[in-house]
Amino acid sequence: MENRWLADVLARPTPESVRFLGRTEVVDCLARIDVVAAVKDALVSHHHGRTILPSEAYLSWTNQHGAYSRSIGMPGAVLDQGDEAAYGMKIINASVSNPEFGLERAGGLGLCFDPRTARVTAVMEVGVLSAVRTAAVTAIAVEATGYGSVRSLAVVGCGTQARVHLALLLARCPELRRITLCDVRRPVAESLAGELVSRHPGVSFSVAATPAEAMADAEMTLFLTTVSEGYVRPDWVRPGSLLLNVSLGDLTDEVLTGASALVVDDVQLIVENPRRPLGRLINEGRIAAKARADRPSITATIGELLAGDMLSERPDTGYVVVNPFGLGILDVALFGAVLRRASSAGIGQVLELV
Amino acid sequence: MENRWLADVLARPTPESVRFLGRTEVVDCLARIDVVAAVKDALVSHHHGRTILPSEAYLSWTNQHGAYSRSIGMPGAVLDQGDEAAYGMKIINASVSNPEFGLERAGGLGLCFDPRTARVTAVMEVGVLSAVRTAAVTAIAVEATGYGSVRSLAVVGCGTQARVHLALLLARCPELRRITLCDVRRPVAESLAGELVSRHPGVSFSVAATPAEAMADAEMTLFLTTVSEGYVRPDWVRPGSLLLNVSLGDLTDEVLTGASALVVDDVQLIVENPRRPLGRLINEGRIAAKARADRPSITATIGELLAGDMLSERPDTGYVVVNPFGLGILDVALFGAVLRRASSAGIGQVLELV
Repeated sequence: MENRWLADVLARPTPESVRFLGRTEVVDCLARIDVVAAVKDALVSHHHGRTILPSEAYLSWTNQHGAYSRSIGMPGAVLDQGDEAAYGMKIINASVSNPEFGLERAGGLGLCFDPRTARVTAVMEVGVLSAVRTAAVTAIAVEATGYGSVRSLAVVGCGTQARVHLALLLARCPELRRITLCDVRRPVAESLAGELVSRHPGVSFSVAATPAEAMADAEMTLFLTTVSEGYVRPDWVRPGSLLLNVSLGDLTDEVLTGASALVVDDVQLIVENPRRPLGRLINEGRIAAKARADRPSITATIGELLAGDMLSERPDTGYVVVNPFGLGILDVALFGAVLRRASSAGIGQVLELV
Repeated sequence: MENRWLADVLARPTPESVRFLGRTEVVDCLARIDVVAAVKDALVSHHHGRTILPSEAYLSWTNQHGAYSRSIGMPGAVLDQGDEAAYGMKIINASVSNPEFGLERAGGLGLCFDPRTARVTAVMEVGVLSAVRTAAVTAIAVEATGYGSVRSLAVVGCGTQARVHLALLLARCPELRRITLCDVRRPVAESLAGELVSRHPGVSFSVAATPAEAMADAEMTLFLTTVSEGYVRPDWVRPGSLLLNVSLGDLTDEVLTGASALVVDDVQLIVENPRRPLGRLINEGRIAAKARADRPSITATIGELLAGDMLSERPDTGYVVVNPFGLGILDVALFGAVLRRASSAGIGQVLELV
């Protein structure tokens, strides 16, 4: 059946186009951008209230395999990102049964919006960019908390996030000499160690049987797992060390409440999400949302440390926890930087939209 | 500066692609779909609770011209749309200064999601599809309220929405003989009348100087303006007529409270949006959200009328108001139908995403 009524009805609009970038093109662009500087600028903008971060749209369902599936739409803006403002939306979907079928668990798109017309100007693959953004926040937190010159690192969880994190940290922390890897699937850790040895001959890589063993000897530990129940006990934590709680679920309540400093990306996002351990502890009144001397509290945001509003000192006997919730506006800042690079270098396909 | 750390870090993922459809391809697909049947099925699914409609994400800002600009992300799902469920997201952005620069006020993208993997499977231009969806809801409401065989129609506001609405109504209401057009820019109404005359020689088209004049002689009136302050007075309304309040802002409180029947698409959406007149009147207690005999109330949803759960009668002396808020899930249903058509007919570009 043909809808003849639709033919010739429409006025001829002004042509509009959109730039499309697959993962290969996004990686091309990211390789030519100082992603750490771009993310740092966006964190400082956020600290100064120069960002717009509305509530996300959240659609969830159970798929035919009984697996939890969801789509999150996160619009946002960074108003003074370098010379240009960045407006856009991150769409990040996931189904927990995807890895069974050989797919990455999560995937999605990054969109850029024109600040003047609100039009969508770019559509790009978001998976690698999102991992790079996460690693950039970690690298920034390591430096901002005073751990930029450590010599030893433990990594718990050896998937894609670990690959991207290690590549970035090895580039930015030249004094790193000893890295211990740990994964519940030991061959995954061994395989990653093997790859890294050949690429970084000056660094020693080893595989630990347990997180406790990995942490025992490391000045900082990076958690990049999919664990939802805390298991890291306080006596595993080496005095003076830094715990980078990127996967958010590994630390027990005792480790979180016992930290001598607790650094986050955004206090409000954490407080609003009591499903995550730190948000729950704040909602239970066991950790204060603002810095206090008399009881466990959030000490600073990364933005405060970067802006010099708060000082962070490496403790001698205690330990520091960094708990980054994940800020969609940092992705939006990178979408803008990637699009500027793609436009100037002619990367990606310009598609006729209207 | 090149980020060498990013090179060769990533594992080779399973290839993934996404189908891209510009407006031309979307119109191609829509022309081969029974859009009214697809929207009707989705309205019935919604009535039976077989849809998922989360809160939207809403980003707003003021652009460099001082104009209000915004992006809305509306994810949703229709669980039994024909043989396949439809999951997706509508992204509809707008800036009120766009028409000054020759652009349509609003524009955006429709995304389809795979129900099993949650992956984005299609990206399509959304402007025409959204207008077609709106017109389909109007056509369905006309028939469901018993006005399918009227002979006279007034249209207030003669932009793109009017073009699409008139094309669809002229196709579905073969007894229409007299159509009166009205626009604050009279030449726009005259130009549209001229176009329509040549395409529909059996119908008489005229241009009215005022909405009151247009309404005086019409069994139903269609409001498709950008007005935000009500101006339609009760004495303009012809007894027994149908008012299709698509643009939501034209009717005064007196016209809304005086209706003998009041039909909506979704009660909750209207109640949650007191910025719109009907939502405000409900929140002020002047119109009841559930059908009541003793005072002004919402009489039925379009889904109830379609499912036969509520009966609607054409009044002799009173008048009927249809107030469709706009349901993103109806667009999502059409995204699914367009993608099925595009996939089977090989329409659009398949782009490498990962």
